[in-house]
Amino acid sequence: MATKKISLLGSTGSIGRQSLDIAQAHKDVIEVVAMAAGGGNLDLFAEQIKQFQPALVSVPGEAERKTLKEKLGASKIQIEIGSQGLEAVAAESGADTVVTGVVGFLGLKPTAKAIEKGKTIALANKETLVAAGSAVMPMVEKYGAKIVPVDSEHSAIFQSLSGHTKDDLEAIWLTASGGPFRTWTKEQIDGATKGDALKHPNWNMGQKITIDSATLMNKGLEIVEARWLFDMPADKIRVVVHPQSILHSAVEFVDGSIVGQMGIPDMRLPIHYALFHPERVHSARVPRLDLTTLSQLTFEEPDTDRFPCLAIAKKVASEDTTSACVMNAANEIVVAAFLNDRIAFRDIPRLIEQVLEKHKPISKPGLDDILEADRWARQEADNLLKARAA
Amino acid sequence: MATKKISLLGSTGSIGRQSLDIAQAHKDVIEVVAMAAGGGNLDLFAEQIKQFQPALVSVPGEAERKTLKEKLGASKIQIEIGSQGLEAVAAESGADTVVTGVVGFLGLKPTAKAIEKGKTIALANKETLVAAGSAVMPMVEKYGAKIVPVDSEHSAIFQSLSGHTKDDLEAIWLTASGGPFRTWTKEQIDGATKGDALKHPNWNMGQKITIDSATLMNKGLEIVEARWLFDMPADKIRVVVHPQSILHSAVEFVDGSIVGQMGIPDMRLPIHYALFHPERVHSARVPRLDLTTLSQLTFEEPDTDRFPCLAIAKKVASEDTTSACVMNAANEIVVAAFLNDRIAFRDIPRLIEQVLEKHKPISKPGLDDILEADRWARQEADNLLKARAA
Repeated sequence: MATKKISLLGSTGSIGRQSLDIAQAHKDVIEVVAMAAGGGNLDLFAEQIKQFQPALVSVPGEAERKTLKEKLGASKIQIEIGSQGLEAVAAESGADTVVTGVVGFLGLKPTAKAIEKGKTIALANKETLVAAGSAVMPMVEKYGAKIVPVDSEHSAIFQSLSGHTKDDLEAIWLTASGGPFRTWTKEQIDGATKGDALKHPNWNMGQKITIDSATLMNKGLEIVEARWLFDMPADKIRVVVHPQSILHSAVEFVDGSIVGQMGIPDMRLPIHYALFHPERVHSARVPRLDLTTLSQLTFEEPDTDRFPCLAIAKKVASEDTTSACVMNAANEIVVAAFLNDRIAFRDIPRLIEQVLEKHKPISKPGLDDILEADRWARQEADNLLKARAA
Repeated sequence: MATKKISLLGSTGSIGRQSLDIAQAHKDVIEVVAMAAGGGNLDLFAEQIKQFQPALVSVPGEAERKTLKEKLGASKIQIEIGSQGLEAVAAESGADTVVTGVVGFLGLKPTAKAIEKGKTIALANKETLVAAGSAVMPMVEKYGAKIVPVDSEHSAIFQSLSGHTKDDLEAIWLTASGGPFRTWTKEQIDGATKGDALKHPNWNMGQKITIDSATLMNKGLEIVEARWLFDMPADKIRVVVHPQSILHSAVEFVDGSIVGQMGIPDMRLPIHYALFHPERVHSARVPRLDLTTLSQLTFEEPDTDRFPCLAIAKKVASEDTTSACVMNAANEIVVAAFLNDRIAFRDIPRLIEQVLEKHKPISKPGLDDILEADRWARQEADNLLKARAA
């Protein structure tokens, strides 16, 4: 097979590290041509650069560039910085596939840049579609780009749709682990600590996503993402709680047949799939699921009373306005505040709702409307947090 | 969409009745052009003929033709008889799809005839591939025919493979309900009555298949069927017991991803799928599965000690000889003997093994070798039964 040339955004994060694990295992066919990382772990980034020898890398600012240069020693590698650097990595002409492993709204602009270049996007940055699906999806069509989802749920849906068209699809079944608080009472959840919320039962992920998983906002964001990715109305996207995370999601066809994808909960499977799509390649890294050892899989309705973020997201997902962008931005700010011990777990949905209540939604927003709504929502969430602290 | 014109073999049997239920529900797009039935329920067959108005029908013999003519009154319909009649229905020039709902080895010749005419075969007669896969599959290729399986398990595998090629496939996971004796001890199973064996927990099927399901020979036959249908070695076809029969089977791709098809256990789903393939058409008849109401799905290893028929079939499936044909023929005879209260449940695997022990397998058999092996095995099984009775 032809060599796959990839650009990697978010190289030292959870998705980035696992992508490189796969690239290393398949180094005869995967070449990493560009990498971008945040400044949090420059030691690791320097190691990754030495190992994969990309032509171009990017870090957040001048300070990180200086530190990285020192760590790389005699290397002549091109080091870019800031959002321009991130976009340069996303647009790198040598890459055919861009893995968007950055977390949050930060991923939107470089992803848009990669789309403009007609690349295949291995999309792990769900905020891109959540906030800006109505602006991004027409760009995908216009520039002949392609999105292959890396979220395990959307990868499962994508895989289950193989050989079918949208007309065949009746509904989408998004599975949710239910998070660490699935069996907790409303009162227990209200008093949950950061430590409690960071204990995810099945998935090894970054901190922000782990909190989103505890509030079920992650599933809410995924409803919005699925709505754009598969062009389905929100009321045809149903959530089912499945604590074992073996069935990664499913599709229901018009004839009543349900096809779903299963596996061990391990992000390397959807990453591997996205990197090699449309081919299926033997995996040296993905652990195998033996169905005879499963014992039992359970399923239940999600509870929007104990998990109000899911109700907020369902409502927002049914609109085509800036509300999804605002929900996402407010969520980023309040989750960061929770991770910094500034607010309680129960405050997360309350603050998001307060921001949404103040928002005047714009219908069918363009990219500029979305950038402005995002900015406004972050400021509004910040103001609410400051008012509480005062 | 263009009208689907179907020929139906086994019109008054379980598959036949359910096929007509679907044809009736979609009568604007499905036309039944020919029908064949055994003589067991000529009242029903006459009703079906009046309802669907086919151009050609067939019954076993002269006596049935006479009775049917009387029941049909003034109808000028063409009524054929015997194996020639069955083959005429299978080859009916007006049909593009032939539903082979006849049970047993009887289905082989008409199925071969339909293949020679390049038709799409909605294959519910698993004995065709079990006994004669090595002869039939090259014919499918030669005549440009197509087999769409109607067995729920093989339909699930077929659906799960959509958009993929054989190179993508690593293994097949055949699910088994485990039958009515799944939790019985070996001693209890040895003493099982006909009434016990006919109580299938999930599926509403014909008597012969229900007994095969109790012995797990049904799963054994399905291993052989899958081996031919999907061109997979028998050791890559794994059986997993799944008592709820919701996951109808699955495929494991080379990258470790498992894709499976789920639904309410109802044969109308795979029949509907086969009739409309490659399109997915909204079903007015297939009951929907709501994943949130599933509560639990369980999985376990099959026990070949308590269910020796499965061990016999696995061994036979690994060969490309007349042994599978002999196993199938012996099974048909001894199951009929069990249904006629001539032998005990425990005698079923014992007698099949005795016939297989006496058989001298022919490698890569042609259709004539298979017909001869079938004839020999039936006689041999009969002789064993007579010797026991004496």
